[in-house]
Parts: sequence; structure tokens; C-alpha cells
Amino acid sequence: MSVKVAINGFGTIGKRVAWAVSQQPDMEIVGVSKTKPTYEALGAAKEDYPLFIAIPDRQEAFAQAGLEVAGSVEDMVEAADIVFDCVPGKRGAANKTMYEAAGVKAVWQGGEKHATAGTSFNALSNYMDSYGKQFVRVVSCNTTGLTRTLHPLEEGWGIDNVQAVMVRRAGDPKDSDRGPINSIEPVLKVPSHHGPDVQTVMEGLNIQTMAVKVPSTIMHMHCNVVQFKDKTPSGQEVLDAWEATPRVRLIQGAIEWGDQKWRNLPGTAEIMELARDLGFPRGDFMDIIVWNDGAHMMGDRLYYYQAIHQESDVIPENIDVIRSMFQLTDDNVKSMEQTDKSLGLL
Amino acid sequence: MSVKVAINGFGTIGKRVAWAVSQQPDMEIVGVSKTKPTYEALGAAKEDYPLFIAIPDRQEAFAQAGLEVAGSVEDMVEAADIVFDCVPGKRGAANKTMYEAAGVKAVWQGGEKHATAGTSFNALSNYMDSYGKQFVRVVSCNTTGLTRTLHPLEEGWGIDNVQAVMVRRAGDPKDSDRGPINSIEPVLKVPSHHGPDVQTVMEGLNIQTMAVKVPSTIMHMHCNVVQFKDKTPSGQEVLDAWEATPRVRLIQGAIEWGDQKWRNLPGTAEIMELARDLGFPRGDFMDIIVWNDGAHMMGDRLYYYQAIHQESDVIPENIDVIRSMFQLTDDNVKSMEQTDKSLGLL
Amino acid sequence: MSVKVAINGFGTIGKRVAWAVSQQPDMEIVGVSKTKPTYEALGAAKEDYPLFIAIPDRQEAFAQAGLEVAGSVEDMVEAADIVFDCVPGKRGAANKTMYEAAGVKAVWQGGEKHATAGTSFNALSNYMDSYGKQFVRVVSCNTTGLTRTLHPLEEGWGIDNVQAVMVRRAGDPKDSDRGPINSIEPVLKVPSHHGPDVQTVMEGLNIQTMAVKVPSTIMHMHCNVVQFKDKTPSGQEVLDAWEATPRVRLIQGAIEWGDQKWRNLPGTAEIMELARDLGFPRGDFMDIIVWNDGAHMMGDRLYYYQAIHQESDVIPENIDVIRSMFQLTDDNVKSMEQTDKSLGLL
Amino acid sequence: MSVKVAINGFGTIGKRVAWAVSQQPDMEIVGVSKTKPTYEALGAAKEDYPLFIAIPDRQEAFAQAGLEVAGSVEDMVEAADIVFDCVPGKRGAANKTMYEAAGVKAVWQGGEKHATAGTSFNALSNYMDSYGKQFVRVVSCNTTGLTRTLHPLEEGWGIDNVQAVMVRRAGDPKDSDRGPINSIEPVLKVPSHHGPDVQTVMEGLNIQTMAVKVPSTIMHMHCNVVQFKDKTPSGQEVLDAWEATPRVRLIQGAIEWGDQKWRNLPGTAEIMELARDLGFPRGDFMDIIVWNDGAHMMGDRLYYYQAIHQESDVIPENIDVIRSMFQLTDDNVKSMEQTDKSLGLL
Repeated sequence: MSVKVAINGFGTIGKRVAWAVSQQPDMEIVGVSKTKPTYEALGAAKEDYPLFIAIPDRQEAFAQAGLEVAGSVEDMVEAADIVFDCVPGKRGAANKTMYEAAGVKAVWQGGEKHATAGTSFNALSNYMDSYGKQFVRVVSCNTTGLTRTLHPLEEGWGIDNVQAVMVRRAGDPKDSDRGPINSIEPVLKVPSHHGPDVQTVMEGLNIQTMAVKVPSTIMHMHCNVVQFKDKTPSGQEVLDAWEATPRVRLIQGAIEWGDQKWRNLPGTAEIMELARDLGFPRGDFMDIIVWNDGAHMMGDRLYYYQAIHQESDVIPENIDVIRSMFQLTDDNVKSMEQTDKSLGLL
Repeated sequence: MSVKVAINGFGTIGKRVAWAVSQQPDMEIVGVSKTKPTYEALGAAKEDYPLFIAIPDRQEAFAQAGLEVAGSVEDMVEAADIVFDCVPGKRGAANKTMYEAAGVKAVWQGGEKHATAGTSFNALSNYMDSYGKQFVRVVSCNTTGLTRTLHPLEEGWGIDNVQAVMVRRAGDPKDSDRGPINSIEPVLKVPSHHGPDVQTVMEGLNIQTMAVKVPSTIMHMHCNVVQFKDKTPSGQEVLDAWEATPRVRLIQGAIEWGDQKWRNLPGTAEIMELARDLGFPRGDFMDIIVWNDGAHMMGDRLYYYQAIHQESDVIPENIDVIRSMFQLTDDNVKSMEQTDKSLGLL
Repeated sequence: MSVKVAINGFGTIGKRVAWAVSQQPDMEIVGVSKTKPTYEALGAAKEDYPLFIAIPDRQEAFAQAGLEVAGSVEDMVEAADIVFDCVPGKRGAANKTMYEAAGVKAVWQGGEKHATAGTSFNALSNYMDSYGKQFVRVVSCNTTGLTRTLHPLEEGWGIDNVQAVMVRRAGDPKDSDRGPINSIEPVLKVPSHHGPDVQTVMEGLNIQTMAVKVPSTIMHMHCNVVQFKDKTPSGQEVLDAWEATPRVRLIQGAIEWGDQKWRNLPGTAEIMELARDLGFPRGDFMDIIVWNDGAHMMGDRLYYYQAIHQESDVIPENIDVIRSMFQLTDDNVKSMEQTDKSLGLL
Repeated sequence: MSVKVAINGFGTIGKRVAWAVSQQPDMEIVGVSKTKPTYEALGAAKEDYPLFIAIPDRQEAFAQAGLEVAGSVEDMVEAADIVFDCVPGKRGAANKTMYEAAGVKAVWQGGEKHATAGTSFNALSNYMDSYGKQFVRVVSCNTTGLTRTLHPLEEGWGIDNVQAVMVRRAGDPKDSDRGPINSIEPVLKVPSHHGPDVQTVMEGLNIQTMAVKVPSTIMHMHCNVVQFKDKTPSGQEVLDAWEATPRVRLIQGAIEWGDQKWRNLPGTAEIMELARDLGFPRGDFMDIIVWNDGAHMMGDRLYYYQAIHQESDVIPENIDVIRSMFQLTDDNVKSMEQTDKSLGLL
């Protein structure tokens, strides 16, 4: 059996999910959708993905751009076992009716509300909650990042509370119409939506989040304070726990040797350069990056920094969620290993 | 009596202290010093401050730029009752010997270590510690900002602990050789130096700080979590306490009216615009800016955002410290009122 | 007689025009208008400008913000001799009917089309074209900047052609919703609108312009190549001509002394710092800034760089245009002197 | 025969040249050098490039980082037929003695002076000048970009003069210590070094260049004005000429369809996204990007914009130069085809 996957919305997330699906032996892309014949549609054509269009009137515009149209979005949904809804701007909920009518499974992304799907997903923390389900939401990049590093802490020692501050890049490289250019903007609502969102995949976790937006396009940065409940680990035990966790990568900000100290990976720009050096597709980093020289225990509290590649960290989860929804395996560790191997993450 | 003030280093801080001194009836500028005849020296000439030079060989270079030189730095120190050491790059400690030899009082800024002066100063929290002293350090912009909003909380309800994240602008407008341009960089050492620095003016406060550097030139942003000890105030009580605190200004991020919601002061750029609208010299904001719609009590914890104008928030303290060191008044509230009135802050 | 001035739209340009008018002995502000009770309205209240509102339903929203409303925009227009239309987004043309009905004079800004007013204005190049006119447009910041430095060249030696590239800051400080954050965007239409716009105030000038948008908020930069027609000046003659031109200021990028070379004013950030040091209101720079060490003659071509403060360079022209339209003087040099003296530019 | 290539300096350019060499059937990497055991050295290890070190004392520091050291830079040079000198900061000239002593060929990059090598190289314009030479310099990214689009214009119609403005990104992603953050800085020397540098590979071309630095990390943008000499092409003929030129790629900034107009590739950020979509290694773009809707003929002048990927556009030339220096072929078109095919550019 090969799971037939459709991608509704071939943008930042959609094109990455399509690539990841194409790396799986037991899955195939039956189509991707676009609304406009812009350069990203050329990327779909290059990969030979059948191209479906959301606004049928524009077929001629696609023809003018040399793009063959395979049909409408409805046609694409019809041909699929599962649809990944990657349309921008919270229009995903409006598509639910279409998916229900077609009787297909559907996955939404973190921009959509939990209630749309009813179930939220993280491979590490609650894989089985989506087992056999029709509708699931993969949580956002920031929520995924928090969950990956908090889950092993909760498992290992029990968390009393988490205070996290997200320093968010203001836009992806292609969001060139977004500001601010020279400002720092707080998210005045506290908790920001990230805290409650983590609770959709780590039930009962006591977490509060604050957030600010800054003029950078690269990665988010989290500044996290974790207070432990019962037992308190050493700093080394924490690092060891993360070392053993899939999709968490430890790095060194500075290298010390004798009385020398060299900048190694001091910020998000260098991490992106490392991703390029390691040959990752698109220069993505699907792992959560944690500085081992930035993680410190003080009393019963752990302080650490992590960097999140907004465009790509959820991609492996978008593959695992298929295995859970189609009951391909009930072993989340096995699913993650299979996914990570296929995506070159090991 | 008029206190004779010399400014050693006429840069970002030095030129603002000079202006603030010139607004006081009982103080006068006897000189400012520069190392190079660049545009900032023109600013000194415009104000008719006697100009002294740190590198005597360069007298001719100043003459070529049409700048009259009044003498050496040593001459300037000789003529002063008190020297403000505003030289960059932690060279301030090396100047201590010169001040000791001349028998003058001296004030260092927050870039210098506490140990250089032995006493650190904040007008609100520890004015009397500097009373009559010869050497004092005014703490940095971030430390001053934290102290101004934490002091009334400590006084009012008692603080158990503070977890603060500083999102720092990477440079002042004139630091055009500094990056990063498109990166977020964490301060990997935890606590960052800010936490211990607050303890030099609020002894015994349990505070930890993390920090990141972002590509903005305007203001710093603090994301603070305060856990109270004995009593827990309501959100409104906290706002009332800050309202009554000098040099803390409450603003509204958004304005709501009926079902309308308008961006008002969403970030640091707009706050700087407000400073210009209010007619403050140089467009500075010497107050600490707190969003009243960004301050929230949850359980026994207070979450709030504050913005700090790096170039100017310490300026009023640099006047108060003179009053303390010369024993002009032993009433810090009276000193602050007098300073704030003279600087147009009321 | 005192000219009664109304400001329709109290934003970036409107608030500066209001300030400039308030500095004139023979002019007075009868009102300014706002659509929303945001922080900029507080600036109007601080200056005691009568506040009129564009959307009458919102009177209550202004009251809630503690702002007294003097009436509607129509009331304000009724009370004025002349209205400055400073509303954003090219809605100015739609207001023309209102101004015609009220029989008042009106001035539009450079965002509006030439055709709306029929006459465009620069104090140096075509002051008398607006003499006694009812409707005039003051050209944009970039057009004003080009005209100020090109006019003396045309007068002195005759221009064969101008090739100019505008490197445009992407937004003003308060345009925090505008990008791009990390991109350079060309204006693909050539000539960009700037070239034809210069021709509305320097008829017959052979000028082509290209433009790019960059992630900076401070100033525009022009890179200009002027080919002379009949006579070719020396570099020094060009500098002398600009020295004698109002509202053009020469600066030095670097200072050389012996074998030393010091950065002095290497870019737009330092120029903004200079404006603050010189005490200009809001830190504005109403002059056009030309680097004298960046201006070079090669053969019959002059190459030079100039920096333009987008928010403020047109402000003096907005005063001169009143004198022309009300026939207060027919001598543009005298008008400029009077204006510049009143605004602290001399 | 397989040409043995050493890379002295494994940074931005060095690691890309190493990759490009590894794609050639008749060339091999005998070693790369590093001074510090930072993350970029891991990239070398991942590719199994023998790692040589410039500062022998640091062998232990490399060992501590788990990196095996094959020997000193001198050892590496000894083992090579040709060395690519990619060390930063103009230290390349100092290495010439070492290469002479070892009797190897050497290639410098555009940061080095023409005089160091005596011959400068562009595959399109002067391939044969380097034929059989021992020392050659591949010109810089900007010079390479100008040459690629100007050469076909010179060949086709004859160029009278070129006026070019380079809008330069201030740093590569990993140059996170470089500013400016919020400023535009002109290169006050005119012509900037780019004009004369083009003349090292297009002898006798009449070209002047100006340049500014802006706060972006992505690509450079050139705004070019070409005046033709004898014949004047149509806009379409120019586009056709570029279409037929290797390593020049035409793109569309906006897509128009009926009365619709969609942003397609409006700036450098989207071009970088396109590079990622097309699957280029590291997200590089080795082609020069020209907007076909940004190229316009007016009279005898051509106006056009081109975008330059600073990190990678010279990489193909670094392969062609080997073929020229080792006399592997005397046909530059054939060399370019072979290179472009191997690097996935066709």
C-alpha cells in the first residue's frame, strides 16, 4: 500500500512536506495546489508534482506561464487518501467541509486552531493520540521546539513550571513585505498563544510564555527557565537526556582551548551556515538547536537557549503523523527513526 | 556654590550628561574631552564647552578642523570638582589613578566594573550609599531599568524571585560598524551580567537574567517574570505603584473602542516617535516605558514588558549622584523631583 | 494679516508642517485632523492645536482618550485660509472637491499626483509658478533633494543629462509594519517616478532615475551622475556652488590628518546623530547632505552622493509655498532666508 | 591526469571551490586548510577532505575537537599542482613566496590585488589570458557579475560608457560581527574599485562605478546604465543576447495577467528562495540574475538591474581557470559548458 498524499497550498511548509513525502517508500504525492502561477509553481513543475489550482478561472494564467494544470483542488482532494492543508492565513478551517465531503483524512498546520482538528500532534509526546484519527493538527514550529526539549525533562525529573520567552524572527526570507525593520515588538497578551499550545500536546504542563518580534528572518530563539518538581538533575544529566532525544542537536557557541576562546556558533546566522555546510536541502535545520555552553542549572532551575528553524522543524512530524493516522506503526520511536533516516537527519 | 563638572569622553553618554548638567542652576561644565576632531567635537564647540584633548600630539588636527583646544585631560581634571568618566571600552579603571592624584571626585558608568568605584548608584533604591563618597559608579541602562520597576514591587509586596530576559538592541545609531545584521545571538553565560549588577543597588534581590542581541538600534526590551513572596498584588495595584514611581511611564500598546482595535504604541520604534512628538532633546526617552496592556498577574507571578532607551535612561541618575556625593540633599525623592523638573520629565 | 492654516492629516509630514507654521509670526494653526485617538493625537493636544476629526462617529473614542474634539474636518476647512493635505495613501485627490467647495487654498504633498494641483513647487527652482495660485503640490522628499543640488549646476554650467540612482530607506521609524527585513528590491519601472517628477519643477531637464528599496529606516541615499553641457566646472567650483545654495549642507565622510584617517560621518546613521547633536527638533535634518569627499569630477561628468531625510526635507518648502500662494513676497531668496531663520537652519 | 587541488582557507569561497572541484572527473582535492577548529572544519571532515592547519601549535586544539590533522599548510602546498588561496583579509599576497618556492600554480580571489597575480580572469571575456599561466586572480563577485552582462553588449553593439551603482549587502550570513544595522554608507572614492577591476578583464572598457553598503546579508544589486557606441539594440535584442549568455539568468519581477498583477520575484530575498526551490547546493545562485521587466532602452541608453550572489557567482570561474592554466582546453565556451553541466547549472 502506498499512501496517496495531496498538498493543499504549496508554500513554505507545503513544498517541504511534499519533498519529505517524496522521500518515503510507502507514500506518494498525488498533487499540489497553487493559486497563482508564480515562481514557486515552477518548483512544483520541476519536481513533476501534478499541479492543481484553487481558482479555476486562472487556468489560462498558468498556461501563459508554461504550467500544465491537472485539475481543481476538489479533483486533487478526490484523488488523495490524506490532504495536508498548508494554505496561509487561517483559511484552513473553511476547507474542513471539503475534506469531510470527500471522506479523506486531513492534517492542518500550527497556524490553525486546535479545535479545527480536535487532536494536536507531536511525535515525541503524544503520537498515539492521533492513532487512526481522520483529522489532526501538527503543532507550530515554536510549540514543536518547546515540546522536543521539555518532554525529556518532564519524563526524567518532573517539571514544576516553565517560564519561556520566544524571541521571534519577524518573517521568512520570502515575507519581504513584512516588518518591522528597526523595532522590537512585544506580544502584549500573556501568556502568548505558545504556552497553551504546548498544553495541547503535553497535557497539564504548567507553562507560561512571553514573546517579542525582532527584525531578523532566520530563526526563532527561545530563552527558557524550567523549575523542576521532585528531583533536580545536574547540568550534565540534562545534556545527556537531550543528546538521547531525537531531533534535538547540541552545539557549542564558543570553543575554548588553553587561554584562547573562539567564536564558533554564536547565533542563528552561523547555525544556518552550519545547515548549509551539512548539506541539508534548502539549508534547512529540522533539528532543534540547543547550546550546551548556554544550558545552566542554578538551584532547582534550568536555564537554556534554543534556536528554531521556523520553516522546517515540523517537517519530520508531518511524516510521523501519517504513520499514526494510518496506523502504519504504533511505535513512535520506530516511526521517528524511519523518518529521520529518510530525511538525512541521523 | 556651583559644582564644577568635567566630562572625560564626549560620546553617547558624555554629551548627554553635559547637557543635563548645563540645565542645573548649581552646577557648571568646566570642560569636556575628545580624542579625535570628529563631528561630535563640533557639538561640544556649538555648546561652548571648553574642549580638552586626551592625546596632546593631536592639537594640530583639532586646529585643522577649526576647533580650539583648552588644554589636556589632566588640565581639565585639575579644574574640576567632579569628573564623569565616559570613555568607551572599559578604560575607565585606568583613569582612577589620575582622579586620585588630582583629589577630585569621579563617577563611572555602567560599562565599568563595580569594584572600580566600590559603590554603585541608583537614585530610587540606594541614593544614600553614595552620600559624601569620592568614587561612585552609576549602573548601566539595563540595570537602571530593572531597578526602577522592581524597587516599588519589592517595597510594596516583597519579591521572591525575578526571571528576566533582556532583548538587547545590538548598537546605538552611531555604532554603524557593529552587527549582527540578520541574526539573533544569545548571551550564553547565565546569569548574564545584568542580574548580579542589579544586586549592587538592590542588595539581596533574588534575580536571574538571560539576554539576546538582535539587529535593531533603538531600544532594549525586557521580558520580566516576578514571583512575589508574602503578599500578591492585583494587576491594578502594580500599575498604580508604577504610576507613582518617578521615571517610569505607562503606555498603551493598542487602543480598543467598541469592536475596533487600533495599533497605538506596538513597539520600540513608535515609542521613539512618541519621544520626538513630546519634544524631548535628541528624541531621547529617559523614562522606563512599561506597557499597561502588557502587564499581567497570573497566580503569584507578574509578567510585564518594559522598553529601555539605552542612550539616555541613566542621565537623570547622573545628576542625582552629584547631589548625593556632594551632600547637596539627603532626600532622594527631592533630588529626583528637582532633576526631573530641570530635564523636562514631569 | 495672519494666514490661517489647517493641517488635514497629522502624521509624519502634517505634524512637522504644523510645527513650522507655528514658528512663523504671520501664520497660525487653526486646526489639525486625525482619524484615530492614537499617540500622535496626544502630540497635537500637547501643542494646543484644535483637534478635528475625519470620522465624526468616533468623537466618543477621542473623549475616552481624554482628547477634546473641536469639530469635523469640514468645520476645520471652513475656518482656514489654506489647508495642507497630508493624508496618507493618495486619498488627497478625493479631498479636492471639499477644498473647492469651501473656496480655500490647498497644498498637497509629493505622494499626490502633479495633476491634482496642476502646479508643483520647489522654492529654489520655480517659486513664482505658484504665485497667487489656489492649488499647489510640494514635490516629494527625493524630488526636493535632487532639485536642490541640480538647480545650481544647471544655473552655473548647463546640464546635458543626469543619471541618478535612489537607494531608498524602506520605511519611516513608525512604519513598523513595512518590510523588507533582509532584501534589496529594485523599482523595475525605469525611469522611476522621481525623474519625471523633477521635471515638474525643473522643466526640460534631461534626467533618468532608477531606484531600489533597502532595509533601513533612516534616510535615502542618492548616487548621481551629472554630465555637463557647455562648460565643465572643477570639483571645487561645484562645492562652492553648493556651499552658496540654501538647504544644502556639505559634510566630510572621513577626516585625514597626516597618515591618520578617522571615520567622521560615513553614513546616514551618523548624519542622524549629527542632527541630534545640533539640536534640531525631532532630530530632523531639513538640509540635503552632500559629502564633499564623495563629489568627484571625471571628464565632463560629476559624481556625487547625497543623503535625504525623508521625513523633513520638504518642511521649509511647505512654508515658502504659503508665501508664494498668498503673494507675501515675490522674492524666493528672501522667502527662503526668512523660513530658514525661523526654523533654526542658518 | 587528475589535477591535484589544494584549498588554502576553507571559508565562504574555499568550501565552495572545494565542492566544485569535487564534481569534476579530472580534478581532485588533496587538502584544505583551517586556522581554528570551528564548525566549518567539521564541514571539511564530513566531506573527507584532508585537513591541514596554518598554525601548527594548534594541532592539539583540533584533536580536542575530534579533527584529524594531515599536516601543515606547507605540506599541503607540496602535495598540490595548484593552490586556491582563499584566506581572508588580503593576506594572500604574503603567501605568494610559499607558492613560488613550492613551484605550484596558484589562484587568488577578488579580494586580492591584480598585481599579486599579474593576470585576472573571467571565463567569458578573457579566458585565454590565463592560458598556461602560473599565477592568476579570479575577479570578485561584483566584477564577475558586471562582466557577464556587459561582455555580450560590448560584443554585440559596442559600448560607449557604463555608469554603474552597486548596492552592496554588508555581510555574508556568517559575518555576524559586521554592521551597519540601520544605515546606508556610500563608498566615497569614485570610481569605487569595481570599475577599474572590470578593466582587468575587459580592457579598455569605459566604466565608472559608485557603491553603497546596506543592511542586508543576501545579495548585491547593480543598477546599470549602458550607453551604446555605434549601434543601438532594441530591448528585446538585449534580452536575447543575455538569454544566449552562460551564467546569466532572466527572471520576471511581476506577473501580469489581464488586469491582475502578482509579485513574483520582487527582490533578492525571493531570488534566494528560488535558488532553494531549484535545489542548488547551499541555496547558492551561481548565475547572475537579471530582471527582464527591469531592463529598458531609452534612446541610446540601456537601463537594467542585476542581482549577484556574493558567496557563489565566481565558483564556476574558479573551475574554468584551472582548465585555462593547465591548458586542458583552449575553448572557453566548451570549458563553461563542461563546468556548468558538472555544477547543475544547465
